[in-house]
Amino acid sequence: MDIIVRFTPGMIAAESDIRDRDVVVIDTLRATSTIAAALMAGAREIVPAPAADEAVKIAHRLGADRTLLCGERGARMIAGFHLGNSPREYTPEVVHGKTLVLTTTNGTAALLRCRGASRVVAGALVNARAVARSLADDAQVTFLCAGTNGGLSLEDTIAAGAIIAELVERLATPPTIDDGARVALRLFEDCSGNLQEAIGATDHGAVLRSLGMEEDIAFCSRLNHFDTAVPELDGSMIRLRNDP
Amino acid sequence: MDIIVRFTPGMIAAESDIRDRDVVVIDTLRATSTIAAALMAGAREIVPAPAADEAVKIAHRLGADRTLLCGERGARMIAGFHLGNSPREYTPEVVHGKTLVLTTTNGTAALLRCRGASRVVAGALVNARAVARSLADDAQVTFLCAGTNGGLSLEDTIAAGAIIAELVERLATPPTIDDGARVALRLFEDCSGNLQEAIGATDHGAVLRSLGMEEDIAFCSRLNHFDTAVPELDGSMIRLRNDP
Repeated sequence: MDIIVRFTPGMIAAESDIRDRDVVVIDTLRATSTIAAALMAGAREIVPAPAADEAVKIAHRLGADRTLLCGERGARMIAGFHLGNSPREYTPEVVHGKTLVLTTTNGTAALLRCRGASRVVAGALVNARAVARSLADDAQVTFLCAGTNGGLSLEDTIAAGAIIAELVERLATPPTIDDGARVALRLFEDCSGNLQEAIGATDHGAVLRSLGMEEDIAFCSRLNHFDTAVPELDGSMIRLRNDP
Repeated sequence: MDIIVRFTPGMIAAESDIRDRDVVVIDTLRATSTIAAALMAGAREIVPAPAADEAVKIAHRLGADRTLLCGERGARMIAGFHLGNSPREYTPEVVHGKTLVLTTTNGTAALLRCRGASRVVAGALVNARAVARSLADDAQVTFLCAGTNGGLSLEDTIAAGAIIAELVERLATPPTIDDGARVALRLFEDCSGNLQEAIGATDHGAVLRSLGMEEDIAFCSRLNHFDTAVPELDGSMIRLRNDP
């Protein structure tokens, strides 16, 4: 296995960083945690949309009765939408059987940046082991962290490290890793003893705390909480892998 | 002081990451180490050039008698140039009083990406403390790591961490730092006990070793070896700060 890590979509320097590679998109606070939570709560599928108006158009086309408009700007729910970007909102009562149209500031943009990849999977701390398990031994894997406004996000770095640590443990042959993967592994190892504290001490952790969303930090810090969730992009939809 | 770290030029997402900020450009293997070494060996000034043919034109314009053509592609000296990118080549006998026109794969590109900055300084492990000392308490500082072919470079991350650690120690008021700076600080702290081993274990360390350039790794790992060297961009030239 060959592993590279890109810490923001802007770091995708060449077509070859994505093309014919398995891409794990990470926005652990909170989009990819929310995607895992929503699908595990029985949402039928999730359509990532680049912008709020585009999300409204997609929902309209799919039919209002079976879709929910979801997402955030500035970490808050978008006016007129059904749900924000907190994984705790995505309960079976609310989302079971629904198609969710989701737009977030950084996460959905990263998901939509993966044209040409052989697979696109949504990874987070909550499904780190499940994602690692789904990657084949001989895969070429790119971790694409969403980042925040062009900068590296520490929480995404830690989540990438969590998945890479699982891979290193599982693979018969040690993977070839780049400097980005070394950084991610090191950061995860440094804070694996107290993930919630580490995730709370990030830039975006501070934003969520200032908005009273501490419980989202706790939720998104639960390593392997969804131990079978492998959300995978299939055309324009994200579904659970092997979901009927 | 407000500190942000960008790990590659591609991560410069907005004009505001650079404009009116003090920018510390880091390519510790080897361009910014070489710049510090060359100026400390008495080179008059260094002109960063984006490409080899451009470097030749600049040298021609400045006059062949007082200029040396310097740089690398693929870590090797460019055909027809006087010097490569090893700091050990830049001895007083060779460079004293000369103007050096330097083009390297990642470092000079990063230096030339800083238009609009209030100051541009070349930082490396060899001059970490000197650079930290030169930054004012109230400065807005961007660390711009050169990276390698669009990816993060572990050695530049460690060097940024070394300078930030010096700043944290020196400043009366703790700086505001972003997640990138947290990553850099953590990585430096993890490996400060054996910098040479850590720098040698990076992607680019491996490239240099494969080319028989282990001694460059040792040289570039000498923390604060040049404890007064603050190379600063002045128009199109890099000179020592406060050099007459």
